[in-house]
Amino acid sequence: MINILIVGLGLIGGSYAKALKGFPDAVIYGADRNSETLQSALADGVIFRGAENADDIIENMDVVILCVTPDSAIDIINNSPIKKGALVTDVCGVKQYIADRIVNRDFDYIGGHPMAGKECDGYINSDAGLFLNANYIVVADENSTKEHIELLNRIIMYIGCKRITETDAANHDVMIAYTSQLMHVVAAALCDNECLDSAEAYSAGSLRDCTRVAKLNPDMWAELFIENRKELSAQIDIFTSSLKRIDSLIKASDREGIREYLKNTSDRKKRYLAEKEAFEGKSKQ
Amino acid sequence: MINILIVGLGLIGGSYAKALKGFPDAVIYGADRNSETLQSALADGVIFRGAENADDIIENMDVVILCVTPDSAIDIINNSPIKKGALVTDVCGVKQYIADRIVNRDFDYIGGHPMAGKECDGYINSDAGLFLNANYIVVADENSTKEHIELLNRIIMYIGCKRITETDAANHDVMIAYTSQLMHVVAAALCDNECLDSAEAYSAGSLRDCTRVAKLNPDMWAELFIENRKELSAQIDIFTSSLKRIDSLIKASDREGIREYLKNTSDRKKRYLAEKEAFEGKSKQ
Repeated sequence: MINILIVGLGLIGGSYAKALKGFPDAVIYGADRNSETLQSALADGVIFRGAENADDIIENMDVVILCVTPDSAIDIINNSPIKKGALVTDVCGVKQYIADRIVNRDFDYIGGHPMAGKECDGYINSDAGLFLNANYIVVADENSTKEHIELLNRIIMYIGCKRITETDAANHDVMIAYTSQLMHVVAAALCDNECLDSAEAYSAGSLRDCTRVAKLNPDMWAELFIENRKELSAQIDIFTSSLKRIDSLIKASDREGIREYLKNTSDRKKRYLAEKEAFEGKSKQ
Repeated sequence: MINILIVGLGLIGGSYAKALKGFPDAVIYGADRNSETLQSALADGVIFRGAENADDIIENMDVVILCVTPDSAIDIINNSPIKKGALVTDVCGVKQYIADRIVNRDFDYIGGHPMAGKECDGYINSDAGLFLNANYIVVADENSTKEHIELLNRIIMYIGCKRITETDAANHDVMIAYTSQLMHVVAAALCDNECLDSAEAYSAGSLRDCTRVAKLNPDMWAELFIENRKELSAQIDIFTSSLKRIDSLIKASDREGIREYLKNTSDRKKRYLAEKEAFEGKSKQ
């Protein structure tokens, strides 16, 4: 039997616990500072036992999944009485920031990042299907054991993910600055416009989709933006230059130039979609 | 009996013709330069009769719906043998540009703009349900007759739209520069980044949604951008300033400032969604 502890039973942690239900030879424990959340998770049969303070039960855990903010994850990794040789992983959206701050090396920390989310928070919105067909990034290092990497991969596939990618912390942060953080910055900036207040009658799918993720958790994203600010700023600079390029073409009424710009970006998007479809087709075989 | 001619049986025109099927006391005609498209529309029973050249049948038409680019619409309005007193409308994404160029006033031109689309083109992708629950903007002027405005409204509701908004060409162009054109510019600029080429394994919903409309028709959008470039440029400027504001906060690691920025934009998005839901609730009663 392995004891698995999920710390933080919010949207991600709650969904993780629900999705892990029935994982072979495992008992799922939960820790959450909110006693009502703990009671709900116990009543739902999502966890076997819970604690408001993770430190009260963490020393008996073989696997610890930290579904909390990066600073909280670092605090637990460095200061909680984690069992020697345990597998510790997290779900945070930044990786180098955490790797740089870990001092406790008595156990095996392997970074994790499920590429899944929702525009709402909390255990109440958690969902066993949240990770279905999602990507999951794993950041192991030279200290990671083969057994722990395999166990983490089994957990990830069990919760429903479609694709696991192993990379290092630096590359994770560059890619996430683009695929996730830049998109949230852009969505927010698009909503910083008084036209939005009277846009409903004039809008179709493009406004809805480009601004979908603007409804976000300000505390969490402010923390993520700062903890990855070097890569995120670099991405904002790339995007600002791109925007300037097409803006100059529009201001100059350069129809052929705009057409070519849009053809290139449209083709790039089509190649991305084709790659995505090819992978999905292959994974179905 | 009223004769209705749809000029251009592409995605929008084909969908319009399909959605108009059964409109009381009307016969639907179609014009398209592509003879295969015409044959398909005839074979599908979507049009009663067709012509490759709109001029061959336009003089018998009581209603003309121009589902072509703005320049083509202007050309037909000014040069085709349209029946005196007919109702002529279009589906173009710019309105002032067209209004400024109309010289023929023997019939009643009322601008129209259905807020619906798809990431694909052509009659083959047209769909009777394309306009279901869409917004539709109507730009009438002092020459528009009450009867024609009413007839156009009946047509719009018949094809499935949920909300008709009457406004002037100038306000239409400001609002559309924001709700539609800016979103397409941003989606394209987000795809002008080599990270996209390896983004699949690192992506979740935010990349997908923010770049959805980047797969577009370069010719059509280049034309629309130029024809509304004053308003579009103004919107790009507003957006660039907003982006600069949040970028400065990120570069300065101003956590409280980022949090406040994101809270404001998130709240603005929530108010927009609440207004949208309130209207949809009301329209269901």
